[in-house]
Amino acid sequence: MNALYLPLTAGVLSTIFAFIMLARTLKFSPGNKTMQKLSGYVQEGASAFLSEEARKIFLVAVLIAAALGIIFQSFKYPIALLFGALVSELAGVMGMYAATRANARVTQGATKGLSEAFKVAFSGGSVMGLSVAGFSLTGLSIIMLVFKDSFLYNNITEISQAFGKISFLDPVMIVSSYSLGASLIALFDRVGGGMYTKAADMSADLVGKVEAGIPEDDPRNPATIADNVGDNVGDVAGLGADILESYVASVVSAIVLAIFMKLADKQMINGQVQYGMSPEQYYGLILLPILIAGVGVLSSLVGVLVVANMKAKDARKALGFGNVFTGILVLASTAIVIGIAAPDYAFKDTFILNPEFVSRWRLFLAIASGLIAGLIISKLSEYYTSYDYKPTQDLAEKTKSGVAINITSGLALGMGSTFWPVIVLAIAILGAYWSAGVYGIAIAALGMLSFVGYIVSVDSYGPVADNAGGIAQMAELDPKVREITDRLDSVGNTTAAIGKGFAIGSAAFAALALIVSYIWSAAHSAEEIVNNPVINLVSPYTIIGSIIGAMLPFFFTSLLIRGVADTADLMITEIRRQFREHKGILTGEETPDYKRCIEITTKGAVSRMLLPGIIAIATPFVVGFLFGKAAVAGLLLGGLGSAIMIALFTANSGGAWDNAKKYIESGHFGGKGTDVHSAAVVGDTVGDPLKDTVGPSMDILIKLMSVVSLVFGSLFPDKPFFM
Amino acid sequence: MNALYLPLTAGVLSTIFAFIMLARTLKFSPGNKTMQKLSGYVQEGASAFLSEEARKIFLVAVLIAAALGIIFQSFKYPIALLFGALVSELAGVMGMYAATRANARVTQGATKGLSEAFKVAFSGGSVMGLSVAGFSLTGLSIIMLVFKDSFLYNNITEISQAFGKISFLDPVMIVSSYSLGASLIALFDRVGGGMYTKAADMSADLVGKVEAGIPEDDPRNPATIADNVGDNVGDVAGLGADILESYVASVVSAIVLAIFMKLADKQMINGQVQYGMSPEQYYGLILLPILIAGVGVLSSLVGVLVVANMKAKDARKALGFGNVFTGILVLASTAIVIGIAAPDYAFKDTFILNPEFVSRWRLFLAIASGLIAGLIISKLSEYYTSYDYKPTQDLAEKTKSGVAINITSGLALGMGSTFWPVIVLAIAILGAYWSAGVYGIAIAALGMLSFVGYIVSVDSYGPVADNAGGIAQMAELDPKVREITDRLDSVGNTTAAIGKGFAIGSAAFAALALIVSYIWSAAHSAEEIVNNPVINLVSPYTIIGSIIGAMLPFFFTSLLIRGVADTADLMITEIRRQFREHKGILTGEETPDYKRCIEITTKGAVSRMLLPGIIAIATPFVVGFLFGKAAVAGLLLGGLGSAIMIALFTANSGGAWDNAKKYIESGHFGGKGTDVHSAAVVGDTVGDPLKDTVGPSMDILIKLMSVVSLVFGSLFPDKPFFM
Repeated sequence: MNALYLPLTAGVLSTIFAFIMLARTLKFSPGNKTMQKLSGYVQEGASAFLSEEARKIFLVAVLIAAALGIIFQSFKYPIALLFGALVSELAGVMGMYAATRANARVTQGATKGLSEAFKVAFSGGSVMGLSVAGFSLTGLSIIMLVFKDSFLYNNITEISQAFGKISFLDPVMIVSSYSLGASLIALFDRVGGGMYTKAADMSADLVGKVEAGIPEDDPRNPATIADNVGDNVGDVAGLGADILESYVASVVSAIVLAIFMKLADKQMINGQVQYGMSPEQYYGLILLPILIAGVGVLSSLVGVLVVANMKAKDARKALGFGNVFTGILVLASTAIVIGIAAPDYAFKDTFILNPEFVSRWRLFLAIASGLIAGLIISKLSEYYTSYDYKPTQDLAEKTKSGVAINITSGLALGMGSTFWPVIVLAIAILGAYWSAGVYGIAIAALGMLSFVGYIVSVDSYGPVADNAGGIAQMAELDPKVREITDRLDSVGNTTAAIGKGFAIGSAAFAALALIVSYIWSAAHSAEEIVNNPVINLVSPYTIIGSIIGAMLPFFFTSLLIRGVADTADLMITEIRRQFREHKGILTGEETPDYKRCIEITTKGAVSRMLLPGIIAIATPFVVGFLFGKAAVAGLLLGGLGSAIMIALFTANSGGAWDNAKKYIESGHFGGKGTDVHSAAVVGDTVGDPLKDTVGPSMDILIKLMSVVSLVFGSLFPDKPFFM
Repeated sequence: MNALYLPLTAGVLSTIFAFIMLARTLKFSPGNKTMQKLSGYVQEGASAFLSEEARKIFLVAVLIAAALGIIFQSFKYPIALLFGALVSELAGVMGMYAATRANARVTQGATKGLSEAFKVAFSGGSVMGLSVAGFSLTGLSIIMLVFKDSFLYNNITEISQAFGKISFLDPVMIVSSYSLGASLIALFDRVGGGMYTKAADMSADLVGKVEAGIPEDDPRNPATIADNVGDNVGDVAGLGADILESYVASVVSAIVLAIFMKLADKQMINGQVQYGMSPEQYYGLILLPILIAGVGVLSSLVGVLVVANMKAKDARKALGFGNVFTGILVLASTAIVIGIAAPDYAFKDTFILNPEFVSRWRLFLAIASGLIAGLIISKLSEYYTSYDYKPTQDLAEKTKSGVAINITSGLALGMGSTFWPVIVLAIAILGAYWSAGVYGIAIAALGMLSFVGYIVSVDSYGPVADNAGGIAQMAELDPKVREITDRLDSVGNTTAAIGKGFAIGSAAFAALALIVSYIWSAAHSAEEIVNNPVINLVSPYTIIGSIIGAMLPFFFTSLLIRGVADTADLMITEIRRQFREHKGILTGEETPDYKRCIEITTKGAVSRMLLPGIIAIATPFVVGFLFGKAAVAGLLLGGLGSAIMIALFTANSGGAWDNAKKYIESGHFGGKGTDVHSAAVVGDTVGDPLKDTVGPSMDILIKLMSVVSLVFGSLFPDKPFFM
């Protein structure tokens, strides 16, 4: 277990560099008074939202932690849970702190040229990337080191004792609780942030652009600051928490599977079936995920430092180079870790794969299949949503026939775009499984996420550049400044697509690994894991669960859309009121009340984020206690399928509508001001909450439900209460 | 097995009365020359489409039948399949023949008053209802009587012989093949008819109403006849084939389960576990479904005759009375059948329910739970889509904020509307299961569909009234005539909602029963049925299958929407061409070329129906041969969940958009001609293909895939090909 000091060191190092990058970002000039004032508004608004949101989330987290402590009579799990939540929250706060301070500095940098602006923007974004990677890995290493005894080979209770009436495995509970903490923050951050950003965006557009006829990011629009705050809380904090959670979930699910395999794996030894594995094999498998994460963090750190110090003339090339460079580093260092630390082990788990001895290099194949699948899925979403390709061009062309056809075709595009990603996912699952069993599926997720530090840095860079453009506009700087920030921003959009592909792909893999862990945890003995009689596919409870699971993402979508619409409604009323009661705002003689708008959006988003969040947490309990363990297995599997489809559908429909509009704006079919353009604008507006609120929430919804089930699953009865 | 003569007699009787009702319909006056000519166009167009469509479908059916015969070395299954297809096709042809001749007669009747018009319309519709019930039951009885030997207790091969490497059960194959034949017709009729009707509708509206500014059903519109043909091929033939298929599938799935139970049911006899059941129990269970269907057909016949001979002053009341009257008859006669024919039998099947002796009256409970669930689901769709209730009123209110909000809110409404129906479905599944095991789930579907003859009569009456209105308009009759047909039509819309609820609910039950049958058929021995090791929930193949299954309905939706859009595009070009090249059309001096439009729609819909249809048939094969039996089980379960959600979502979003528009037209928020109204029209257009093409196809998609898997499942390997 001493090997844990390696990931701990990597995590701490990444955290230290996050602070260094923050200091470096703050050293750049924040620009003139106006710019500082505007940036100040955004900072204030963002931190007001974060603290309001955090208060609500921590209430929920503390309640769950208390329940965990009382039910399982242990202080370890609540500590792990709260620590996981804290780590995620801290990363968010720190990343947000940097991003909201980098914005004006990027604007200022843009006055000197693209290279300078890029440096500031990437430095600002990298604080989030390095914190996400650093905090999460440090936290997990600490938890495992502090509760080291629980993970020791001899202290993992033997099957007969471990599986009782309500039995649970101590080390599984520790890491799952940590993951649950991170999931809670992620869900609420994604849902709350997603509602905030779209409510602000839609209302600012509707009243500002359409009704009052003032351009985007105009300082006369009372919602304009809220809109900029939204970019930060949605795309920086929300995305950071999301990826952090995926990362933690994939490491944790691999560890959990390794623990179960220690207990229940079937091996042929001297011609006899025996359960369990050797200490060497066990430690190898349990430490491997966190070691891979460790070298991934180090590789990302190197990648970030290299890109942040480049004299970039072309932002796209710089980021692309960073991608390839970091990717190669990750693969190479992962190979080294596998060569040194992984056991040679026949991966014959539940579904007996092959009784022969299998080389450790198969683990590498599993990781590679995850990575490749992530890349292909990203490319596919680019294909469906970029206007360089046929689908979005066709959508733009169809828009000539009017709004209805634009909407219908966009829906068809998104729904049809589920086909290939699912096929790729299916092949990758098979590949990972064939390489290294269920454990292979878990580490395949890790393959996609191991350079999380770099990915989040790039993803957070986008909103920083976006904000910088807003500030340039509001501070009425030279249009050339805005041009530079726009160029930075457009690169951000492309790289964000890659992040999205990885998010969906890794979520599918991590959720699968968690679901298998949950099903294993429902067994009463090692033999039962191999052929679980409690969880049967033909059971009506499994079937009921799977139908309810398939329904949940649809219902959740409806709650999210309504949350956005309701909050936007409140904002619209307020913006209209300000314009009506203060005639000076539109003439530029009066400053609008930005704060009031920020307050309203904050309150609206936070209050409407609770119901969907609580439903996601509560459903496994309700289904589990009413219909038993098998129903929850069905719930998770049904939910997984439905959530993946809605995530792909909403992301791609929304992206295509957005870019079809941009394609028309770039001069096709008459360009701006035509009927075709107005029709495209409607599609874009419909797509906005779909792609930015609904889509990203789906990944977390299914992972949160899976991890809740894993943590609390031992409490559910084997059969429905009335049987 | 001689009891089969009862359902045979009932079926023949219903068929005879279908002919009597047809003769009665034809006796009414067909109106003046113009009306006859218009009706003639519709008749020609409808039969042109039906024969074009039938040619393609029968090609597919013959190919599948040939494969079936060659693979299984038996002439029985291809005969059963083709007979099932033929029966469905004949019912469709006959119903359509009556409906397309009733239309002008209803118009003529409306000149004499509502009571007369109602009588003609209901008589016309009842031909379809009575044929559907009569033909399907007659066909199934004949097949079972002809191949009687296969169903005899002693001829059901014992487990050891029946389950070989590729083993199959002869009687299961016979009835499943019959069901597959009906499914094939249903899928293509629904998909083809759905595309036809919406393509014609959308293009007629877009070019006629919007561009040329002429009213709906105006004889100057070249697409107007195609539009009326569409009502018949979509709502009469499509719906009839759909319900016939549901009906056959639920009877067949119950029979199939009974056959498996004969082989594999576990009973405690004298303290020892024994498999199999007594001849008495076996014959009781195998004949019960078809006997219940038989008395259901007779009850429907009585109900239809009573309503058709009423002097109705209020169409709504007459149909409502018929509903209640027939429902009571069905329940009473079902109770009698159960009392006489059902065995007392402990329903402890795979999921051992209760080792005690269980009364036959539990079967009645199962049927009742299906019936009640169907009623509640129907009421729920009425709640979500009727403008008498809050959801649709809210949607209309939100439309004030513009098109984008109308679309977004409509999507949220539909997705949110999946919640309660799924809960109801889950409770009903549990209720049916708790009452009578898996067999209970199968007969619960029958509970919903046993008065199919009456339901289809009412559902087919709607399009007849709709067509009558069109003819009144085109023949330029007194507006009062149109008023009467409109009143008949609006009643049809309400009753159609009930049909939709039953269609979705019964599809879920029937598909479930088929899926369980499939999973049972994958076992190699009786013991394996109880705990099937081939199909394991945790298997990666099951999981891959379930993700692909969840994707399929989304992909299918996209194909359907595109099919409608493409066919509409062809039509739009043609209508514009006619207006452009023949200036006399719009002035009324020239008759438009109706036939050309009909030809284009026919060709478009038929050619675009093939791909989705073939995908639905081929997917189980592809998944089965590549990934094995377990993957197909996952495919069906994943597909079921996704298909139910999309069916509910599209039906309710589409219905709500439609009625929100009508609510506004009835004078709210400014009424016709306002911006609010135009926004609502867009929502209605978006919803049209969703609710009338996509939604109804979902039910059949999942049932067709299930029955294909059941018929061909024995060929799939246990493990993926590469393992």
